[in-house]
Amino acid sequence: MDVVERSGDEDNSCDAGLVFIGRIHTPWRDRSSCPRNASESEATARIVLEAPYRPGLGSLDTISHVILLYWLHQARRDIVEIVPPTDTRAHGVFATRAPVRPNPIGLSVSQIVSVHADGLTVTGIDCLDGTPLLDIKPYFASVDAKPEARVGWYETRPNPLPPRG
Amino acid sequence: MDVVERSGDEDNSCDAGLVFIGRIHTPWRDRSSCPRNASESEATARIVLEAPYRPGLGSLDTISHVILLYWLHQARRDIVEIVPPTDTRAHGVFATRAPVRPNPIGLSVSQIVSVHADGLTVTGIDCLDGTPLLDIKPYFASVDAKPEARVGWYETRPNPLPPRG
Repeated sequence: MDVVERSGDEDNSCDAGLVFIGRIHTPWRDRSSCPRNASESEATARIVLEAPYRPGLGSLDTISHVILLYWLHQARRDIVEIVPPTDTRAHGVFATRAPVRPNPIGLSVSQIVSVHADGLTVTGIDCLDGTPLLDIKPYFASVDAKPEARVGWYETRPNPLPPRG
Repeated sequence: MDVVERSGDEDNSCDAGLVFIGRIHTPWRDRSSCPRNASESEATARIVLEAPYRPGLGSLDTISHVILLYWLHQARRDIVEIVPPTDTRAHGVFATRAPVRPNPIGLSVSQIVSVHADGLTVTGIDCLDGTPLLDIKPYFASVDAKPEARVGWYETRPNPLPPRG
């Protein structure tokens, strides 16, 4: 991925702290083996929560899809413009799903396969094995489903690779 | 909101740090005036990014909807089960969109009204005025739109208030 660095204006302090509530176990051990997009893979991921958070799983067995937030711990944070592999033009990071971003929080809409005492099994996630989990949210179609949404730069890209999830 | 506290197993250390990349300006100055759900309001929100992140806005003018991630800075983090206002039963926080959660990251799917040199104007967000912004992601209908998604506990709730966004 070509990058345009914009550094120098930030220091290393942080404004808020995250806790890792669990880990996501996937078949992918390095970036090169990851699917470009969750929709490319039928693989399941096994999410294991740390013990204090397991009571938070209650009622997930009534839910079909969740939004998973996770920490892209290998991603650079000092990049604001990139040339994604799907294109030859530079775009702002906030117009892309690239893992490099000021706060490298990954997001996947995933289907629940099964709920366990210590976590859940899902499809539709393409992150590295061992990725730290930040949050699980129920997906409400009434507010989260926007099938009419458009991403113009992506629709006119010269290189028709799918986006990263 | 009734809460079931589960504390004592965690210390105050954090595993990763967030930077606030901007602020979200909304009409709502306190929790009681916030709409319960973004779909209840036609109000617009004005997002202003800190200067170093503004080049990241490039190409957002070609995009219709974004996923906004923000920091719910007033939310408690020591709660794993709650009785939401929409129900009389306790549920795990990960089955709800309540702001109280171990990592209080808020998420809204918002429609872009306009893109400015320093940020953007959107509809479909219900957070407090001044909420810190963490990330902006383009919404890809191909991977993010799941109109068939179901939230069983919510569909059978006794008190038919809408969910929080």
